[in-house]
Amino acid sequence: MKNGGSDPKIIHRAGEYHSPSPVISWLFGKPLPTADAAHQAVGKLVGLAVFASDALSSTAYATQEILIILAVAGLGAFGYIIPISIAIVVLLAIVTISYEQTIHAYPSGGGAYIVARDNLGTLSAQIAGAALLTDYILTVAVSVSAGVAQVISAFPNISPYRVGLGVGAVILIMVINLRGVRESGAILSIPTYFFLGMIFLTVIVGFYKLTSGSLGSVENPPQLDLVVFHPITWFLLLRAFSGGTAALTGVEAISNGVPAFKEPKSRNAGITLIWMAVILGIIFLSISFLSVQVGAIPSETETVISQLVRTVFSGSNALYLAVISATTLILFMAANTSFADFPRLSALLAIDRFLPRQFTFRGSRLVFSWGIVFLAFVASALIVIFKASVTGLIPLYAIGVFLSFTLSQTGMGIRWYKCGRLKPDEELIEKGSILHFDTKWRIKMLVNLFGACATAVVTLIFAITKFTEGAWLILILTPSLVALFYAIHRHYIELAGKLSLNHIEAKPRLSKQRVIIMISGVHQGTLAALNFARSLSKEITAVHIATDLEQTEKITQKWERWVHDIPLVIIDSPYRQLLHPLVTYIENAALESKPGEAITVVVPEFIPQRWWHNFLHMQTATWLRQALKHIDGVIVIDVPYQLD
Amino acid sequence: MKNGGSDPKIIHRAGEYHSPSPVISWLFGKPLPTADAAHQAVGKLVGLAVFASDALSSTAYATQEILIILAVAGLGAFGYIIPISIAIVVLLAIVTISYEQTIHAYPSGGGAYIVARDNLGTLSAQIAGAALLTDYILTVAVSVSAGVAQVISAFPNISPYRVGLGVGAVILIMVINLRGVRESGAILSIPTYFFLGMIFLTVIVGFYKLTSGSLGSVENPPQLDLVVFHPITWFLLLRAFSGGTAALTGVEAISNGVPAFKEPKSRNAGITLIWMAVILGIIFLSISFLSVQVGAIPSETETVISQLVRTVFSGSNALYLAVISATTLILFMAANTSFADFPRLSALLAIDRFLPRQFTFRGSRLVFSWGIVFLAFVASALIVIFKASVTGLIPLYAIGVFLSFTLSQTGMGIRWYKCGRLKPDEELIEKGSILHFDTKWRIKMLVNLFGACATAVVTLIFAITKFTEGAWLILILTPSLVALFYAIHRHYIELAGKLSLNHIEAKPRLSKQRVIIMISGVHQGTLAALNFARSLSKEITAVHIATDLEQTEKITQKWERWVHDIPLVIIDSPYRQLLHPLVTYIENAALESKPGEAITVVVPEFIPQRWWHNFLHMQTATWLRQALKHIDGVIVIDVPYQLD
Repeated sequence: MKNGGSDPKIIHRAGEYHSPSPVISWLFGKPLPTADAAHQAVGKLVGLAVFASDALSSTAYATQEILIILAVAGLGAFGYIIPISIAIVVLLAIVTISYEQTIHAYPSGGGAYIVARDNLGTLSAQIAGAALLTDYILTVAVSVSAGVAQVISAFPNISPYRVGLGVGAVILIMVINLRGVRESGAILSIPTYFFLGMIFLTVIVGFYKLTSGSLGSVENPPQLDLVVFHPITWFLLLRAFSGGTAALTGVEAISNGVPAFKEPKSRNAGITLIWMAVILGIIFLSISFLSVQVGAIPSETETVISQLVRTVFSGSNALYLAVISATTLILFMAANTSFADFPRLSALLAIDRFLPRQFTFRGSRLVFSWGIVFLAFVASALIVIFKASVTGLIPLYAIGVFLSFTLSQTGMGIRWYKCGRLKPDEELIEKGSILHFDTKWRIKMLVNLFGACATAVVTLIFAITKFTEGAWLILILTPSLVALFYAIHRHYIELAGKLSLNHIEAKPRLSKQRVIIMISGVHQGTLAALNFARSLSKEITAVHIATDLEQTEKITQKWERWVHDIPLVIIDSPYRQLLHPLVTYIENAALESKPGEAITVVVPEFIPQRWWHNFLHMQTATWLRQALKHIDGVIVIDVPYQLD
Repeated sequence: MKNGGSDPKIIHRAGEYHSPSPVISWLFGKPLPTADAAHQAVGKLVGLAVFASDALSSTAYATQEILIILAVAGLGAFGYIIPISIAIVVLLAIVTISYEQTIHAYPSGGGAYIVARDNLGTLSAQIAGAALLTDYILTVAVSVSAGVAQVISAFPNISPYRVGLGVGAVILIMVINLRGVRESGAILSIPTYFFLGMIFLTVIVGFYKLTSGSLGSVENPPQLDLVVFHPITWFLLLRAFSGGTAALTGVEAISNGVPAFKEPKSRNAGITLIWMAVILGIIFLSISFLSVQVGAIPSETETVISQLVRTVFSGSNALYLAVISATTLILFMAANTSFADFPRLSALLAIDRFLPRQFTFRGSRLVFSWGIVFLAFVASALIVIFKASVTGLIPLYAIGVFLSFTLSQTGMGIRWYKCGRLKPDEELIEKGSILHFDTKWRIKMLVNLFGACATAVVTLIFAITKFTEGAWLILILTPSLVALFYAIHRHYIELAGKLSLNHIEAKPRLSKQRVIIMISGVHQGTLAALNFARSLSKEITAVHIATDLEQTEKITQKWERWVHDIPLVIIDSPYRQLLHPLVTYIENAALESKPGEAITVVVPEFIPQRWWHNFLHMQTATWLRQALKHIDGVIVIDVPYQLD
């Protein structure tokens, strides 16, 4: 460790883990070393549980959100749910085929952000990023609220605790995710398959009873509170369709999560995507069809799912409770999907320097802790603001998803066009991804561009039909976020320029230091600080701000007795201000300083034994440091005086 | 400013006032220099307004608090209010005579704290201090809640905003007090005299109508909601009496405030005290008598005062509104009394080093800003917790006042005894106050000791009869506060001992510095910090914590290229912890250091142009400073690198 003269040495040392507390270790698990990062990958079955739950769970509210809109035209309008649901399933098929192509083109993860960045440019990428991040937050808020609504359908007594239950669930999911994705995947794949089992049982029993004529209709359905009956218009049907598109949210999750799959990543992820779309389509259509058959009524007090299930199983029995539990769990799992994707995407934006770089740091369990905590915080705030109402949150929701679908599919279309213009066996490496000729480029391009058109139309329909209900907020928020991303980016780029060693200037070496020491009394701490100051420089000035005449008199006397080599400047402060006169004095000293001369301000600081003793001191050092750090060429030194 | 060798110079400089912002100057007024302190004194008329409003205003709720207790024995028990009120007025006379003697013995302010401290010792003084500070806070909460209750009696519609109105009033009074006492006195003496005028008008008209037989009784009185009728017992009567003793709260305010009066201070203050007691007695008795005559019912929806006034003036007319306004204003004025006394007393405790010394600092308007803001905060919290209910707050209230009365009068008794044992013309200077022989010492001693006994009995009665309603809280809180005061005192005394220059040790002079510089990258900021480090010492070690292998590789390469004279230690941190490995390294270096060798840690810190840019950086410097300041002999230096 001694200075080796002109030969610089680089010395390596091993560090050890320091546990902050046993409680934290117990809660979040043992720390994982950086070298373990690659091991945290998932297979198809676990991958379906982790990444598909968002999409699958939307069947728990999509039907209800269509019915709520149709209800304003009376119960007779409920029949329109079948054509609307079929339209949504067709849209699902288009989006799935598009994304299946993306997954194979982007084995390292082909979320809308990356696809837009590589093929459309930075602005499109930032728009996609803003839209997706907003939607991940909303996924948590909507899914958890929908989960709580299921619980309240079964136990109406706990309805007053709706918001508290929602926030509690978000915190629980946050803690699980801070432990890391593989472990949480293994734990959480059980509820996904439990849900699939229970919901298929419900659907099969439902269809059996329907064909055998024993299905009947909902007993004691909730009240439909309608003020005015509206006629059925195209606008109303499109609004109902927009509400139902919530069923498609989450379809993009797998394409973002490709790197989390086991090898062969693309194949595994692609197969998982197709499984998911088929299952989703069947469940959604079945629930929509059966709900109308049993005469379910959309309501904030009992979910449509709850009404359907208790009708199918003839009462609120154990089977009913099992389905409701499974639905609640899959909805919480959906929130969990966002806890996997939001931190991943925000880390991506942070690496590209459009978000604070804190988002790139992995915690002791190798997860992006900052993103996880941030997501939990904002989603909890939304649950509180919207009082955990799914119908309140939905108008903010799907618009961002469809916007990012559009950007992503457009980007893919352009990509295929570029591939088509290559010669066979030619490869083009562009922005990190490899393009090579593909004989089917024309059909693949058309598939993606058709997907882009379809989702663009849906984005537009959603924005218009849901505008007054809340979509306007997203239409303001998205450009604001993009502006913020660019502001952050500008800061980092400017910083890099200023710190760069490419244009180094020959600054004068620091030839000497001028020390200014702040004195509030003459005691052991002061003498220790003076002692330190003497080791820095021979040019020392002590400064005392006089706010109390008696005190100043005492200091002057003691100074004359104890200090023989340093001048003391006393600055009168008739209005008892402490910081300002001192800052002015130091600013003037900085102005007068010569090149190569550093001004060093020494501030003695008491370090008390117990934390609460800090309240008994003035913390002048802290305030002074804040005030001085903007003055160029001034350095602040705390000289701590430990009191224990 | 140059170092003058062995001859220390003391240089005086004048400072100027720096306004933080025009808004603050407008809100709190122009700053007052320290030399103006003595000018902030008040005459008898303004003094009555400032210091007597607490006592006078308690007539607005004392009668009601007696009736609320009597009500549990049915309307027939209301007749007992007359003997109870007379007992309270007798108690008032005893306390007044006792305090009149105190004011003359303590021209520099004879609050219970000072009297107990000088004559009974520190423990009694701290008990009195805790009791009084608690009561000042409760005065604000009770008076403002009672004021809001008057407003709600006149305008029942605004009842839902009870708590908001109370907190708003506290904030308003706080701002007025931050401007300073004289100015606020002049403004606020108008409402006191307005109240006296209106309340005497009410009483005179009331008695006139009573004698002429035209008084009648309250129309549409509020409902008396009683569950069980209790028999009249001695316990019940004593509880009612305890509720009524709230009328005496505030009598001590003048004796605390003697120094705020114009010369001759004692005479002016004494006369003001007697005026106040006479006015208070008359108003209280009259209100109690007339309230029963008109059949007023104690209630949370309409105050007794409101019922009395609308009966006397035959309806809710302009006269009624004038009296209610005047009562509301005097109650807010009462809160204002505490804003004069609480900061004064807490400054006194802080000077004696039983409270943080921040309480001794005068703001730009010469008031004790810390005490004022603290009082406003705690009183607002109480209003929120007790939902602005006077009846809820009363059981916490008068017990502390009577406890401090007892301590103060006992102290005075002992003082007269000491005076009596002096020879004529002999003077005894004890703890700053002068004792001299007084021919009337025996009678004065008896008066004070009688006062002490009477108030001790009341304290006991209050504690017993109000125990379950809330007095228990004060019986726990007071000793806890005393314990806290002693803990603070111990800290300051230990600190003074450690800092004292009386037992100075010959510490070795700092012979050399060893510099450790923390490196997170190699750029312009790093080179500037290295430049500074070179000016401190020749023994420099750079340390980098490796959390990211790529990053570390880059740093090593750049280090070899740009830095030729300083060794770089790289500490691997496989679990991506940043602070802990560094702190361990520095702790070990500190252990190895020789006597006279200082370890200086240099931390380069970016200072961005805009405040929000701070969120884009890791603030490592701040965290490191916190972590290192407890290590003995280690000094942290921030080397700021301004980015603008």
